Formats: sequence, structure tokens, C-alpha cells
Amino acid sequence: MEPENIELLKQINFPADLRKLPVEKLPEVCAEIRRFLIDSLAHNPGHFGSSMGAVELTVALHYVFDTPYDRIVWDVGHQAYGHKILTGRREQFDTIRKLNGLSGFPNPAESEYDAFIAGHASNSISAALGMAIATRLKHEQKERKVIAVIGDASIAGGLAFEGLNNASINPNNLLIILNDNDMAIDHNVGGLNEYLVNITTSRGYNKLRYDAYRTLRRFNLIDEEHRGAILRFNNSLKALLTKQQNIFEGLDIRYFGPIDGHNVINIVNKLNDIKNMTGPKILHLRTIKGKGYAPAEKEPTIWHAPGCFNPATGERKSDPEGNKPPKFQDVFGHTLVELAEKNDKITVITPAMPTGSSSCFMMERFPHRSFDVGISEEHAVTFAAGLAKEGLQPFCSIYSTFLQRAFDEVIHDVAIQNLPVIFCIDRAGLVGEDGVTHHGVFDISYLRCIPNMTLAAPMDEHTLRHLMYTAQLLNHGPFAIRYPRGSGSQVDWRCPMHEIPIGKGRQLCEGDDLAVLSIGPVGVDALHAVQRAREAGIQAALYDMIFVKPLDEEILHQVGKKYKRIITLEDGCITGGFGSAVLEFMADNGYAPRIKRLGIPDRFIAQGSVKELHRLCGIDEESIYATLTGNW
Amino acid sequence: MEPENIELLKQINFPADLRKLPVEKLPEVCAEIRRFLIDSLAHNPGHFGSSMGAVELTVALHYVFDTPYDRIVWDVGHQAYGHKILTGRREQFDTIRKLNGLSGFPNPAESEYDAFIAGHASNSISAALGMAIATRLKHEQKERKVIAVIGDASIAGGLAFEGLNNASINPNNLLIILNDNDMAIDHNVGGLNEYLVNITTSRGYNKLRYDAYRTLRRFNLIDEEHRGAILRFNNSLKALLTKQQNIFEGLDIRYFGPIDGHNVINIVNKLNDIKNMTGPKILHLRTIKGKGYAPAEKEPTIWHAPGCFNPATGERKSDPEGNKPPKFQDVFGHTLVELAEKNDKITVITPAMPTGSSSCFMMERFPHRSFDVGISEEHAVTFAAGLAKEGLQPFCSIYSTFLQRAFDEVIHDVAIQNLPVIFCIDRAGLVGEDGVTHHGVFDISYLRCIPNMTLAAPMDEHTLRHLMYTAQLLNHGPFAIRYPRGSGSQVDWRCPMHEIPIGKGRQLCEGDDLAVLSIGPVGVDALHAVQRAREAGIQAALYDMIFVKPLDEEILHQVGKKYKRIITLEDGCITGGFGSAVLEFMADNGYAPRIKRLGIPDRFIAQGSVKELHRLCGIDEESIYATLTGNW
Repeated sequence: MEPENIELLKQINFPADLRKLPVEKLPEVCAEIRRFLIDSLAHNPGHFGSSMGAVELTVALHYVFDTPYDRIVWDVGHQAYGHKILTGRREQFDTIRKLNGLSGFPNPAESEYDAFIAGHASNSISAALGMAIATRLKHEQKERKVIAVIGDASIAGGLAFEGLNNASINPNNLLIILNDNDMAIDHNVGGLNEYLVNITTSRGYNKLRYDAYRTLRRFNLIDEEHRGAILRFNNSLKALLTKQQNIFEGLDIRYFGPIDGHNVINIVNKLNDIKNMTGPKILHLRTIKGKGYAPAEKEPTIWHAPGCFNPATGERKSDPEGNKPPKFQDVFGHTLVELAEKNDKITVITPAMPTGSSSCFMMERFPHRSFDVGISEEHAVTFAAGLAKEGLQPFCSIYSTFLQRAFDEVIHDVAIQNLPVIFCIDRAGLVGEDGVTHHGVFDISYLRCIPNMTLAAPMDEHTLRHLMYTAQLLNHGPFAIRYPRGSGSQVDWRCPMHEIPIGKGRQLCEGDDLAVLSIGPVGVDALHAVQRAREAGIQAALYDMIFVKPLDEEILHQVGKKYKRIITLEDGCITGGFGSAVLEFMADNGYAPRIKRLGIPDRFIAQGSVKELHRLCGIDEESIYATLTGNW
Repeated sequence: MEPENIELLKQINFPADLRKLPVEKLPEVCAEIRRFLIDSLAHNPGHFGSSMGAVELTVALHYVFDTPYDRIVWDVGHQAYGHKILTGRREQFDTIRKLNGLSGFPNPAESEYDAFIAGHASNSISAALGMAIATRLKHEQKERKVIAVIGDASIAGGLAFEGLNNASINPNNLLIILNDNDMAIDHNVGGLNEYLVNITTSRGYNKLRYDAYRTLRRFNLIDEEHRGAILRFNNSLKALLTKQQNIFEGLDIRYFGPIDGHNVINIVNKLNDIKNMTGPKILHLRTIKGKGYAPAEKEPTIWHAPGCFNPATGERKSDPEGNKPPKFQDVFGHTLVELAEKNDKITVITPAMPTGSSSCFMMERFPHRSFDVGISEEHAVTFAAGLAKEGLQPFCSIYSTFLQRAFDEVIHDVAIQNLPVIFCIDRAGLVGEDGVTHHGVFDISYLRCIPNMTLAAPMDEHTLRHLMYTAQLLNHGPFAIRYPRGSGSQVDWRCPMHEIPIGKGRQLCEGDDLAVLSIGPVGVDALHAVQRAREAGIQAALYDMIFVKPLDEEILHQVGKKYKRIITLEDGCITGGFGSAVLEFMADNGYAPRIKRLGIPDRFIAQGSVKELHRLCGIDEESIYATLTGNW
């Protein structure tokens, strides 16, 4: 089922095969990779734009370096599809992001060519630095090269800066490739981004500063031995012309570029020029996201991960419209605008996810009250705390898995001061195809232990709206609302909003045999399971608890008194999660029911559809039904 | 009890009083603050060096700005003692860091002059940016100034960079003061630090770059209209000379400095010059840590927090030597050297705490295998992961409260790949005088939920040594060892080391009435309490569990079968902690004993001695005894 016209690619099973080709053949290899990507991703949805933009870079790296002995550390691996195709995974490529298939990101568990995990942004420099220093400490016979490949959005993350700041302090030969396409998933932001744009638009800035230095010397305007004898400059001018004028060189990292990231032969030459240079260095490539496919070049945000499409026309295939529930994200986005229209203290913060989180609706309607801060979750939270400290009401919209980056800021900058930051935790629970690095399964455990925190999870769209309304109405202390990726269960979602008392759940079904305590949208599956169990003669009570913290103690006292058996259900890790909170309450209050906790088991979960993964983890309707009707 | 010769200071109860003085009086105010600090801190141990170095800066800020309407956001507030003295807290100053006294750090709960919490480094720019933007969005009549005061070590943290990177993207008048003393607690490290040193040592770099530009123009070597007509430079040279040569200006933040941070009148003038400038700006002050007290200037690391001392001689008062247990830190530090002598794969990483963590012993013995990465916990963990990925065995020594910063890196970069990074989690549990921002009470909860993680807490020094030995011997997956600040219980700590089987606890006492399951050094208090309870007729079994994860299931099955009542004990938050892990086990295995969990309650705990705080939280010997002998 592979496309036609990939004759060269078919001969390349591993990079060693690539390296046998003459360099003139590489442009054709690149063209074939693009054809392969377009053909494959048209039918198997995946990350499109980043990998299309990184084709020449990928080919050049594997051509010049001795992978897998040399290490390529990709940063946010959705640029690495070409890398997977060249490293023994072309024939399985149509399984990408599927259950038991290839991961959508580099993963050392999958291939020795994947040097490091790469799902969260900005980690490559630190990881590669550690690897580069390790090769030195181990005194390996052949020096092992380590290359970090990082995008212009990722390099602005704090972790990347910490890596850059430390790159020069130890002897190492780290090579950093800056793949600069001027985009995150949405347009890139921030001072560093402006700076990189300026470097580029100055047309040969890097070359010119050497020219400038040489010319000044030629005119005898600089005399190094007698430091500025002629123009009475001291060595600061020399430093200025040779070193300190560049952010990277200011950090003692040699800078080269920018060069055209789509001229593969030139990239090969440049890499050969610099690969044996000692000391940390950075090569800045300008690339175009979606390069080589006109629709993707035109609309890079949409084509970041476009879903299925017609490769010939670029028409994207969407599910038929019609009467179906909206995404939780859109309910969040539209509801926020509704609330912000009446409450002028409301602001929104997103770290580089305006489209993915649907914060974009607020950005369009109230641009001055909307802040896309780029890939910087830590800053997003502390910045929100600053806004809240001065009386505004920030909605901080962050994916669950990325909020891990800001865990300390949630505690230190928000919770200790009990500031009313409203965390809208997107992609909570198992997220499906993005897999192990992206599941948002730890948030209940890591937020529940924070004093002053209110933590809620709506079962449905209406409850999400009520919770958002309640949070901004109360305006007291941190308030976190977690909801999953994708659609919920309610088509008519635009209900009037009302306050929900803090720590108040609701009963959905009555029954005397046992009780189910559920949190979040898995409650819908519980409802179905409870109804089916009723037909099998098991009468279960079902509660949608809405709040993890504080728990509804009234419900829990009732349940603790009445039932001998309780099932807890959550789309989060079972260790320390919602079920454990129920255990704590029962123990503290002297109840001793049997409690079965259903949730994500204590291991890392790979990719697959959400449905498949829920089944795998035992939190789908079938598993709940089996527990309801089981003998325990 | 205030010192003599503080006549001016006695008239300054609030900054408004300071602002009434003529500017010529300010040097005398500074001298009086120094006298006050020396006198007070000689008897009441606290952070000395940072505050001594920030005296002129503090006086100038309160003199120029209309505090508290204008906001000063201190970064790592131990530089803010002078600020506390000038803002209504001089007379309570001798209660600093004591139970029910003043916090050692700025805390808005204590004073309206403390604009934001300031215990963890690098948060000031983001917080102040949020506050500055909030004042704009609120359209306040009088524009409110917001000033972030950040040290040269803190500004290198990733969060600070994220703040800098975002500072220019929105209209705001943020002023950043860079208090550059070339020190963290230990000597500062990293490329940015080198860069700041270079700015300074180039003697007037900032002035010269303007001079250079003017001179080049005078010689007609630059022609702006015809872009480089003479030397064929394009505008990149101009950009280079006027803008892009400075890291901060590269990020679109106007840079001023460096200036002498101990010339208060000059600082006042400079602040007046720039305070009404629009747009974000940074003023770089060179200061000397410990300024004005010769012993502190000479040995700034020791005088960061020197304990009690003789103000006249600078002699530090230490407890009498003699036969007492060492600090857990020193046991860690010396044991690491012992292990590293036999295992050449061992390395150590510390984020700016070589002295505090006693990693310094390893740094002295094996400098090439030791990495002080500066204030960058995220990088520390990912860098360690990189070392581990290539086969080394990194010991990553981080304080519990600061490991929160690297929570995501622990999950994403270490645990998913199951890399053998050994986390030595220092300052776990209640840390005492540093208070609310520094207690290490969440780590059990936030690490326990991570798959692949092994989490242990030694009761004593010998067990710490055995655990460190075991971790490097097994070399399999992430292994975290948490231990507290300060001394343990064993004088003869240098025992031979042996392997402890993973997930294996030990029984310390037998007894039939109830069981105590303890983790960490609070087990020593439990032992005393159990022995006293025995005298009162209560026979309790006591287990030192050693491992939080995996739990010793053999012990737990025995205990679950035998006892109707169990006490769990930990120096960590009770929500989701060790006690909850025991609850989970009992529930999953169908045991239904009554379980009392003793641990840190679900609220933030202020400062005090560790002993006082343990009592406050109900985990001291007395509270354990009361629970043992109580009726429940």
C-alpha cells in the first residue's frame, strides 16, 4: 500500500543505506519522504506540518552523523516522522498513533534510533547535554556526537533556557539545531521569537558581523594589541562584534546561521563543516511548516494535525455535521466569552494552545484580556497569579500533562497566597492517540494534596458551564476544573448557568445493593452500566461527585452508613486519586465498607483510541458493569 | 533592646517617613539599617548576606516609589530584611523565622508592603508582569509602578527567562532590578552569569556601545540612509551596535547599567530617571553580598545564613562539638564519596546547593563527575536523565520543596523511560524556620503516583547509607530517597553498607494491641512513644516501613490480618501520602482495620522550630503517645 515513486526510499531501510547514496540524490530522497508522508497521513491522521518542514534536516542529520551511535534528540517529536521512516519503521508507519502501533513521538522503547523521549517541549538541550557529557566521562574510543533538534517555540521554554545556560559550563561537543519555522502549533510569540525573526530578516547578520570585524581591522580601526588605540574603544567593542551581540554567543554557545532549512545539500555541507568543532554550538535553520504541500504552507495551524484529507486536493475530511455534542474545549471557549462579556475582570492565559484549547474565541473577542504566553506553563501560572493578586480573574487554560510543568507555581505562587486563579485543565484523563507522554492522568493526585485547592471535574457540558460560572462568581482561592479532550454527551449544551455549591455532588440513580461514586465524564459510562446492571437484578446507587476536593461529606456519610460495597470511578491514576480520597474519608470517619477503586492503573499507558484505552484500563462501561455484577 | 546609633531609623516606621528625609540622609539610613541587621541577626539567626547587600537598593526603592501603592516584588525574599525593617516591622524583627513571628520571606499575609510571596527563586518577573498588566487593564487613575527585584542567580532560572521572554509582548511599565552579587548561596554558575560578569568587567560596556555607534557615525563609517554605503554594512551593524548586542535588549527589554549598587544617592537618581519610561526595562546593579560587614564579604557562602555570631568579632557561635549525630546532609555527602570511589559511573547534580546539600564533598573529590547547574531544578533532572540514558548513575540532590519545580521532568524525562536516576530528596518534611514556602511535605503524594518510581525514606543514618548503596547497586529505574534537614539519631553513622531488598520494611517492636506503621525519622519518636505506651499497658507493634513505594506487602498482609487498629505516621502531607497508600492496600486486599493517619494536615504551615511544628501537626512523640493510648 506504499505510494508510487518512492524508489529510493524503498532501498533505505536504515540510515546506513541512506549514507551510501551520493549527496546529489538527497533532494530526491526528500521529495520521496514528502510523498510518503502526504500519502500516509492522508489516511492515518497524525502530525503533518512539523514533519513536512523537517524533511531536509532529518535527511541531512542521518546522512552526516553515524546514527544510532551518534544521538539525535528530537524536541517535541512530532517533527520526527521522517526520522521514523528512515530508521526501520517505514513499513509500520501506517500504525502510527494506533493501539500497539508506532508512537507518534520518538520513544527509546520503540527504536534505538530514538535517543530520548520527546513528548513535552524544551527538554532536548538538557537531555542532550547530559548525554554529551556522559560520552566524555565514559572515555569512549570513538567520540559520540549528540545533536539536539529544537523548534523556535520550544527553545523559548524555561527548561530549554536552563539547558542553554548550562551548555557551556562543561566541556562537551553538543550541537543544537534550531528548527525555526516561526510557529508553535499556533503562531509563535515572545521576545525571543521576535529576536529570531530579526536575526533572519537582517539578511546575513551572522556573516556580516564577521565581515564588519574584518573590515574594521582592515581599516585599522581596531587594534587588538593596544585595545582601541585608534578609535579609543576598549575591548568591549571587540567583544561586541565577535561575541556578545548574539544571545546564544552571550551564553558562550557558538552560533551559525540562519541558513535555508530546505536546501539539503547545503545543510549537509554546513553540518560537515561544524560537526567536529569543539564546544557547544547552535545551527539556526529557517524552515517552513508544512513545506512542500501548498495547503499546509498556507494554513499551518490547521495542518499541524489535520486529520484525514484528500492528498490531491487538500480537502480535509471531517465527520458529518449534524446533531452531535461539541468538544468540551469549545464549550469552555464559548462559555468563557459569555462570562467575560458580563465580568470585565475575567482574563484568559494559554501557553501556546489558543486553538487546541479553544481560548481563541476569547482572544478574538477580548484580545487585551487574552494572553498567549508561548510554551511556558510555569510563567503562565505565575503570571496568572500576578493578575489575580491585583484583583483580576484569570482563567488559566493548560493541558493536564503540561500543568505538571507548573506544579511548583501552583503551590508556591497561587495556593499559598490563596489566589483566585481558575485552572481549566484541558486533556485530563487518557487522551488517546498522543499516548504515553500526553495522558493527563496524574492531576487529581498532584492537585488534591495542595491546601486551599478546590478541584472539580464535570460529568457533562452543563456542569462544566456551571462550574466555570461558579468559579468566577465566588472568586475565592484556586479553583481547578478538569475536563477531557473531545466531545461530551450533551448536544444542547448552551444552558443557563447557575452556581453549584462548593463540594456538592448529585445523585443520579438510587439503589440499595451498592453505591458507585464517580467523578468526571466516565460517569456517563457508569450511568449506562448501572442501568444495565438493574436489568440483571443489581440495584446500584450512582453519585456524580463533581468535586474531588472538597468532597461532598453529606453524600459520603450517607453512603458510608448505608452501603457495604462502594465502587469509585475516575479517569485518573488510581494511586492517590479520587478513590483514595474516598478511602481517606471513610477511614477518618470510621466507616468500613468494601471499596473497589476503578481508575488508571499504576503503569504508563501507550497510545490508542480513548475507547480502547478505557477498556484496557478497566474504566469503560463493560468493566464497570462487570464490577457492579461481580462477586466481591 | 534595639542597638544604639539608629536615630534616623527609629523615626522611620513606614516608607512615608523615609520619603520625608532629604536624599543626603539616605547613606546614614543605610548605615543604621546595617547596624540594626548586624545587631539583630547576631542573636536571632537568619539570612544575613543577601539583605546586607541589598540595603541601598531597598532604601532607594522605598524612597523613589510610592509603596505600598507601588509594588515591590522581591525574588527569593531573604534579601528583604531591610524592606521588613522599613515597612512597619522593625520592632517585631527579633521574632523573625520564629513560631508566630515574622516570616523570613516576604508574605502578603503579613504586610501589605509584601506584594507577592517570595520563597522559591525566579518567580518575580512573571508575577510582577501580571501585576503590571493588571494595573493597565483596571484603568487605575494613578499608574501603579511594579518593580521586580531579582538576583543574578535567580534570573538564570527557567521561570525567570519565561518571564523575560514575555515581558515585552504586552504594553506594561515593568521595572526589573537585577541585584547582581555574582553569588547564589554558593558561587553562581552558568553562561548567563559569565555574561553578566563580562558586561561588568568591560567597564562601561553599556555606555561604550553608544559611544561606538556615535563614533562610527562621526567617521561616516555608517550611513543610515544608504545602509552601509561606505563600509558596505547593512543595517545589521546598526542593529548590532544599538540593540541586539545585549541579551535583555535582544528580548526587547531596555537595559541600563551596570551601576554601583552601594551608592544609594546614585541609585535614587537612576530610578528617578527611568521610572516613568514606558515599556519594560532592567536596571543592573552590582552589589556585594554581605556588604558592610567584613567577615561576610570575605566568606559569603558561610554568611548567607551564619547562625548566631559575635557582632564585634564576627566569630560564629556553634553548638558545642562532642558526641552528637551528624546532619543527614553530611551522611549523604560523605557516603556518596565512598560509593563514588568504588563506582566510577556515579555522578552528582545539585541545583545551586553544593553546601546546603553537602554535595560539596563530592565536588571536591570528583569535580569532573559533579555538576552544580545553578538554580535550575528542571534542567538538573533532565540533565541527570541524559547522563543516565548513556549509562552513568546520577545522584540528583534536590530539596523536596524545589523538586516540585521539576515534577514534570521526573515523570516525562525519567520515569517514562524508567531511567536509573537516584533522587536524594533533601529537606523532606517540615523544615522549621524557613517556613511555609520551604516545607517539603508534598513529595510523598506527588512522587507516589508516578509509575516506575521507587520511593524510600530512611528512619536513620544507617538506613540512608544502605538505601544509597542499594540504589546504585541495582541501577534500575528511578529511585527516590527522602530525608530531612538536620541531624538524625545515630552518632556512629559510618556503618558498613549492605543491600536492602526493594519494598522491604522492618519490625522494631512487637505487640498485640495495635500496630504503628511509620516512614522516615519520625519513626524514632514513634519508638519512644511505643515504649512509653508499653509502660501504660498498651502493647503496640512498630514497623519502620522504609519504602513508601513499593510497600512491604508481607508486613501489610500480616498487619491487616492481625490488627483491628493501625496508626500510620509520616512527616508529609496526610492527603494522598503514605497513610493513604496503606489505606489503598488494605482496601484492595479486603482488610478493614480502623486506621488513624498521623501526618501534616491539609493546610499550609508557617515557620517555627521543627519540634514546635511537629507538635503543632500532631506528629511529635506526645501526639503519637496520645493516639496509642487513646480510645478509638
